[in-house]
Amino acid sequence: MNNRITNLFGIQYPIIQAGMIWCSGWRLASAVSNSGGLGLIGAGSMYPDVLREHIQKCKKATDKPYGINLPLLYPDIDKHIDIIIEEGVKIVFTSAGNPMTWTSKLKEHGITVVHVIANVKFALKCEEAGVDAIVAEGFEAGGHNGKEETTTMCLIPMIKDAVKIPLIAAGGIATGKAMLACMALGAEGVQVGSRFAASVESSAHEHFKQRIVETKEGGTQLSLKKLVPVRLIKNEFYQKITEAEERGALRHELAEILGRARAKKGMFEGDMVEGELEIGQIAGLINEVLPASKIMENMLQEFRVAQAELAQLSI
Amino acid sequence: MNNRITNLFGIQYPIIQAGMIWCSGWRLASAVSNSGGLGLIGAGSMYPDVLREHIQKCKKATDKPYGINLPLLYPDIDKHIDIIIEEGVKIVFTSAGNPMTWTSKLKEHGITVVHVIANVKFALKCEEAGVDAIVAEGFEAGGHNGKEETTTMCLIPMIKDAVKIPLIAAGGIATGKAMLACMALGAEGVQVGSRFAASVESSAHEHFKQRIVETKEGGTQLSLKKLVPVRLIKNEFYQKITEAEERGALRHELAEILGRARAKKGMFEGDMVEGELEIGQIAGLINEVLPASKIMENMLQEFRVAQAELAQLSI
Repeated sequence: MNNRITNLFGIQYPIIQAGMIWCSGWRLASAVSNSGGLGLIGAGSMYPDVLREHIQKCKKATDKPYGINLPLLYPDIDKHIDIIIEEGVKIVFTSAGNPMTWTSKLKEHGITVVHVIANVKFALKCEEAGVDAIVAEGFEAGGHNGKEETTTMCLIPMIKDAVKIPLIAAGGIATGKAMLACMALGAEGVQVGSRFAASVESSAHEHFKQRIVETKEGGTQLSLKKLVPVRLIKNEFYQKITEAEERGALRHELAEILGRARAKKGMFEGDMVEGELEIGQIAGLINEVLPASKIMENMLQEFRVAQAELAQLSI
Repeated sequence: MNNRITNLFGIQYPIIQAGMIWCSGWRLASAVSNSGGLGLIGAGSMYPDVLREHIQKCKKATDKPYGINLPLLYPDIDKHIDIIIEEGVKIVFTSAGNPMTWTSKLKEHGITVVHVIANVKFALKCEEAGVDAIVAEGFEAGGHNGKEETTTMCLIPMIKDAVKIPLIAAGGIATGKAMLACMALGAEGVQVGSRFAASVESSAHEHFKQRIVETKEGGTQLSLKKLVPVRLIKNEFYQKITEAEERGALRHELAEILGRARAKKGMFEGDMVEGELEIGQIAGLINEVLPASKIMENMLQEFRVAQAELAQLSI
């Protein structure tokens, strides 16, 4: 495909694998890039040295474009930025922060910058900051999300109306049909998280991958809204948080229940009871763990079939 | 268009105008039906005699198919059912209740029955109850909604996988692009609420129509989750409810703040401060009040343009 997203990154298909904590290291990123999409290393769960190691291994594993997802609230953000520049990374997706803070420094070093947002206000700020493209992430997405709770179906056309830079849709996309739907709404590419979290190359714990496969419709909920909203699988830890929220618990109590390293405990160490299990609603449509190359192949095939079917509708 | 939805109702285009409280009387329903869609009279805000009057006026205003939306929790439901049968109504969309309760009685009288659901569990129950089609309504939809909070982008393919009967998508659909997106996901028709609430023929108060037009992305929220979840515009009444919810107010206190006839006060009587203003997230994309025929025309035109553009993508 030849559009502003494939041209911006120099990739074959406008499918971006979301840079996720505890799931997307060099193995997953390079597998997606080698399949013609854009693989992202998720820096949010990596110490600086670990990030460097993953970048170096990714460069050895693929000669195709790849990128880094960099949450801007990361405490050691300066070190991450330095490593990204030193290692010659060409593409960075920033998230969870203000696009004005780091965009110009990254671009001075020739890096393509994409910022992840969940509302129109921040989309406008992205354009002002000079980012090259936007990921607009709907309410259904896994992990941390916006307070507006705007869904992909509503968010994509609203962002499309508000800005001129290329738009990548995220949230609820695990199939070629959803990719086609997002393109009908005005996106030029899609970012896919949950589907790749349950891939062979994902660095998530096998228990977590299996739990994603078992998750049905209604099995996740946006939670912890008084802290930073995050979509979780409804396990025992989620229930504990929900009970506290329903009786009006304040931020400090919720933060105490959350504690530290809950996501690592669940997603990386495999504790399905006490761990924080971040995944999107679309987990309900994911029924098996597949290699990244097979996920790419399926999405492209589904896209082509659905496109041909839609073209035949006469109205 | 010729598919299972247009054939089921005998209509030209698979666009259904949602039967909404305080917005969709005979004027709106007949205008939509006369434009080739399916207009629905919203019985939820009508006393039995008022419903009869609207049905009779609708029959005079159009010779095309039209229907009734009937919330099953309505206290005088028996009287509504009797009137529907007596007046020879051919199409009923039931909602807010169990599809097993009334479907067979309606079908014995030759009535086509569609049920509105928001999760896979009830979709399966619909099929068991023998309804003719399903409306699957996503989290972004206006008014009352499900506890699962599954968005249209996720819900449509999940329901499509779960049942064989025809599927109508609802929630977030105000344009032909969104209609096309829903068809890519597996729907054979769309139900459109918010866009028609802000139509010339809508019986909503002008203040409410204007407020819909002014609502931006992030301007609504699913509220009152401890009672029955309902999506509201963030006005002063909403703020009052939200403050109570955040400090852990229980059901009875929330019910007391809500009181009676709040929706009528806002949507029909035009009190934008104290009224309950039910609308979908997609209000953020609605920028003017239009005649129903123009809304239909725009949606069809947008659908055709987007369809042609999608068909040209080569992947």
